[in-house]
Amino acid sequence: MAVVVNLDAERAGREPDALERLAALVDADMARVNQIILKQMQSPVALIPELAGHIIAAGGKRLRPILTLAAARMCGYRGEHHQTLAACVEFIHTATLLHDDVVDDSALRRGQDSANVLWGNKPSVLVGDFLFSRAFQLMVMPGSLRVLEILSGASAVIAEGEVLQLITSNDTATTELAYLEVIKGKTAALFSAACEVGAVIAERPKTEQEALSSYGLNLGIAFQLIDDALDYSAKQEALGKTVGDDFREGKITLPVILAFLRGGAEERTFWQRVMEAQEQRPEDLQEAIGLMTRHGALKDTVARAAHYGAMAKDALGIFKDSPEKRALTEVVDFCIQRGH
Amino acid sequence: MAVVVNLDAERAGREPDALERLAALVDADMARVNQIILKQMQSPVALIPELAGHIIAAGGKRLRPILTLAAARMCGYRGEHHQTLAACVEFIHTATLLHDDVVDDSALRRGQDSANVLWGNKPSVLVGDFLFSRAFQLMVMPGSLRVLEILSGASAVIAEGEVLQLITSNDTATTELAYLEVIKGKTAALFSAACEVGAVIAERPKTEQEALSSYGLNLGIAFQLIDDALDYSAKQEALGKTVGDDFREGKITLPVILAFLRGGAEERTFWQRVMEAQEQRPEDLQEAIGLMTRHGALKDTVARAAHYGAMAKDALGIFKDSPEKRALTEVVDFCIQRGH
Repeated sequence: MAVVVNLDAERAGREPDALERLAALVDADMARVNQIILKQMQSPVALIPELAGHIIAAGGKRLRPILTLAAARMCGYRGEHHQTLAACVEFIHTATLLHDDVVDDSALRRGQDSANVLWGNKPSVLVGDFLFSRAFQLMVMPGSLRVLEILSGASAVIAEGEVLQLITSNDTATTELAYLEVIKGKTAALFSAACEVGAVIAERPKTEQEALSSYGLNLGIAFQLIDDALDYSAKQEALGKTVGDDFREGKITLPVILAFLRGGAEERTFWQRVMEAQEQRPEDLQEAIGLMTRHGALKDTVARAAHYGAMAKDALGIFKDSPEKRALTEVVDFCIQRGH
Repeated sequence: MAVVVNLDAERAGREPDALERLAALVDADMARVNQIILKQMQSPVALIPELAGHIIAAGGKRLRPILTLAAARMCGYRGEHHQTLAACVEFIHTATLLHDDVVDDSALRRGQDSANVLWGNKPSVLVGDFLFSRAFQLMVMPGSLRVLEILSGASAVIAEGEVLQLITSNDTATTELAYLEVIKGKTAALFSAACEVGAVIAERPKTEQEALSSYGLNLGIAFQLIDDALDYSAKQEALGKTVGDDFREGKITLPVILAFLRGGAEERTFWQRVMEAQEQRPEDLQEAIGLMTRHGALKDTVARAAHYGAMAKDALGIFKDSPEKRALTEVVDFCIQRGH
């Protein structure tokens, strides 16, 4: 994937962005990761590679495996286990995407028909389970019990975050703190684990492992906050994605929470109607975006993201300078700047 | 659970059956396993222990964890890791039950409303993921990479078996061999892993590990064959379960495969209508049972089960005599005798 992205930039005759620069640093590793992914999604049951291939080939940014690779390299790791773990991290991510799309009844994923639309919910649940199991087989390979603890722990926390999101879903009384717990679970825990294992397999001291865990956690929170802001932003449309998916599902995200808290009684009635009762009229999305803009809810969601981004960058302070460290630092701002 | 079962037998003034005798041998271990299960299903997200507690408390026979405990004891194991692994095995089993009920749209599980009926499909999928993750956290604890390989490998094979079942579902052309692959995956792989890890943590030689793996695999196949026969048998009703669940779902099991293969053109048209087109009239279940009886399909499903059961018993031949060996041997016949 990294290669493709860089060629894209080259072809477009522009400078590569920070994610492309980070990807370029781990280009050779990523080629191996893609081989591992292809090999490990095979099964005598043909539907499995077919369905898994659909969602994995659709691409996405491969941000999480890139983080594992770059973290390991920054820590001076010279082996090959980081490639296995990067594939493992991508499998966990893909498994959760498959289950998310079932749980959310999503029709689109990465601009294509989602697997549940093409094959139905049942194969999506079961192939998700398969990829999840494969992820565990991959994480055993490096032979590190600490790696296993980190990644299996993250998986449990992801599931907790998803269940928590299901509970808070449609509830306008959700607090910012409860929302943070949701995204720490559903998104940031895997970012954190993806980064931390890089330091663990490089056998770096505990402080560096914790620094990378904190970098990943905060980057993951920032990343999700920006994702949530983008769901209400015109920039999203420019990226070829639909605006308002969260809105239509009644998903409570920080932009909604801030607009709700800052709005008067009449506005709160609006939010309760569209998010809780889910009675939505065609003009409601524009109305929601209008309210968010008036109260600075989108701008401040980005500001909150910048706060976590700043913590992520500072967490890298204990590492000595290297191309990987610079790229990991710059990718934080890149993730946040997607938001405006 | 074991204690309760034994008291049941005592209260009823009858001899304990083979499963109760096996359970009694690992009674103290099982009490610890139940504590581990209770502790590990906890989460700050209250819905998780609530939903997980519903399905776990409903009980079931706890056959898989009993196998892990008894296998470890037969191998002379004196530590405590077998308790952790028994809990792990039960968590994997429970996670697959939750996902199965979603995939099959089942309304009942162990005679109670299923979790998907009580809480909906979404929490069932996500709490399944949580239990699956917890299972992996548990399997890390004994610190044995071989145990991790066996149990994570089994998890992947279970998912493959479930997908394969989904594909063959409603297809009357399913061969007996294809069907065997399905049940090796969805049922026997976990039986096999549950038994094998007992020998691994006891650090017994490879031959004993393989013997227990084979015992579990063959017992698992026999167990599932009997389950499939029971779904069409009056004995099932005596156990307080519904007859014809598989039939109503159009699930192709060995009794159907044998009746189809042994029947004439008219009968095959019947099977295609009820299983493939799923056009079922109230009298069709009785008609199906009639055809199965006429062709000896149920009797021969039990005979096939007895064949795998015989292999299971012989696999234990290399172990020296012990109460556990005797109980593990006798439980095979007990599992098969449920069938008539």
